Amino acid sequence: MTKNEAIGALIEEGQNWFLPSLSVDCVIFGFHDGELKVLLLKHRHLNMWGLPGGFVYKDEPADVAAQRVLQERTGLQEIFLQQFHTFGDMERYDKEFHNRDLKKDGITVQSDHWLLQRFVTIGYYALVEFSKVSPSEDTLTEKCLWWDIRKVPSLMLDHKKILDKALQTLRMQLNYQPIGYNLLPEKFTMPELLKLYETILDKKLDRRNFQRKILNYGILRRLKEIKKGVAHKAPYLYSFDLNRYQEALSVGLQGGW
Amino acid sequence: MTKNEAIGALIEEGQNWFLPSLSVDCVIFGFHDGELKVLLLKHRHLNMWGLPGGFVYKDEPADVAAQRVLQERTGLQEIFLQQFHTFGDMERYDKEFHNRDLKKDGITVQSDHWLLQRFVTIGYYALVEFSKVSPSEDTLTEKCLWWDIRKVPSLMLDHKKILDKALQTLRMQLNYQPIGYNLLPEKFTMPELLKLYETILDKKLDRRNFQRKILNYGILRRLKEIKKGVAHKAPYLYSFDLNRYQEALSVGLQGGW
Repeated sequence: MTKNEAIGALIEEGQNWFLPSLSVDCVIFGFHDGELKVLLLKHRHLNMWGLPGGFVYKDEPADVAAQRVLQERTGLQEIFLQQFHTFGDMERYDKEFHNRDLKKDGITVQSDHWLLQRFVTIGYYALVEFSKVSPSEDTLTEKCLWWDIRKVPSLMLDHKKILDKALQTLRMQLNYQPIGYNLLPEKFTMPELLKLYETILDKKLDRRNFQRKILNYGILRRLKEIKKGVAHKAPYLYSFDLNRYQEALSVGLQGGW
Repeated sequence: MTKNEAIGALIEEGQNWFLPSLSVDCVIFGFHDGELKVLLLKHRHLNMWGLPGGFVYKDEPADVAAQRVLQERTGLQEIFLQQFHTFGDMERYDKEFHNRDLKKDGITVQSDHWLLQRFVTIGYYALVEFSKVSPSEDTLTEKCLWWDIRKVPSLMLDHKKILDKALQTLRMQLNYQPIGYNLLPEKFTMPELLKLYETILDKKLDRRNFQRKILNYGILRRLKEIKKGVAHKAPYLYSFDLNRYQEALSVGLQGGW
């Protein structure tokens, strides 16, 4: 199907396929080489970018829609998406934005067309080690790229607000849940783990305090081997103790009360 | 407006007023006399209870809808509602449930009626000291009562799942955010604070560990006065240090990294 055919079908048939008033948006963070990035799609007509998002089929669970939308818009699969917040403010409703969009595709629709109504969106986020995934475009996407979160371009609608909320959720999560399992190699050094936290939090941490805290949680196992070929002071290799990690995910880092 | 008139208006006009496919549900926890309770409404026809819930006006922010719905269904006002999860599984869609409901009101509608379609619901919760609030019914509600969370009756649709998720969120929250400010008197003893945590977590805690942990967070101020008329060992009165409390709400109990 060509891009124009896909857009045409969406406009003609969409109201029969999808739940009205609802959409999903995905904030995909990538960690690589000490940098935190976010995956964005370039808007077809405007010089603007946005989060991978889409609609929910009438017979599809909302959480499944998020997975499907992500796979369709970026090619990413089998990613654990975390629902973090639903955005339902009036400010996100911009009827003219979508109207201008359609006009640029040479399409005119009635004012009561389903695409021009108000949508409440459910936000999901995930962390991926991005050298392991290859984002690709689909018929509706022009470009799909990773952006440094400190240098994000102009985003459509309230997508900057959604991105900020996802980042805030991720940072708060660091306080009570371990992060790192899906982002680091199976064996890693303490400086590598520290770098991950510093990158997500966007601030320098005291190395000794960090090490003491993270070791106190008991979610790491120090391995017998050391990292070869590095001249620095902390060559010990660690792994996540998966049972303790899972436990910390469910009761929190303090081990609960 | 009588109950029948209200129901009639909702059925006839609802699709013009409300966003399709979307609803809100509120889990109101009450703490009183060492017990955790939840506010439930009795379903009009079936011997079944449910959470206070309702629809979102087309020109109303979703979070505002939750506040309004709570006020309309229970009389509760000025309560800080926390959005915690959006429920969009297929299992929550029971067309026949609503059809039987309407038939008992003597109403028959077409299969494509807006009330018979699938709804995704946004869940909100709040904690209140329930002797301070008076729940009341509205035209659509038969009864509005507090139930001990350990003895909750049969709930409609997936409301038990929503309640469980809210309770899980509240319990996880205890691990990284202080709880208690809106639930205790301005001055309270350590045993009173301990009792609140034990009630929410539904388990006994070690008194000395609890006191040590909670004091380490630095969110309490010990007052000069002691509680009069109590013969127990811990008569000291405490207050929340509001600045430290607010800070802990935003960076978490560990003071972040």
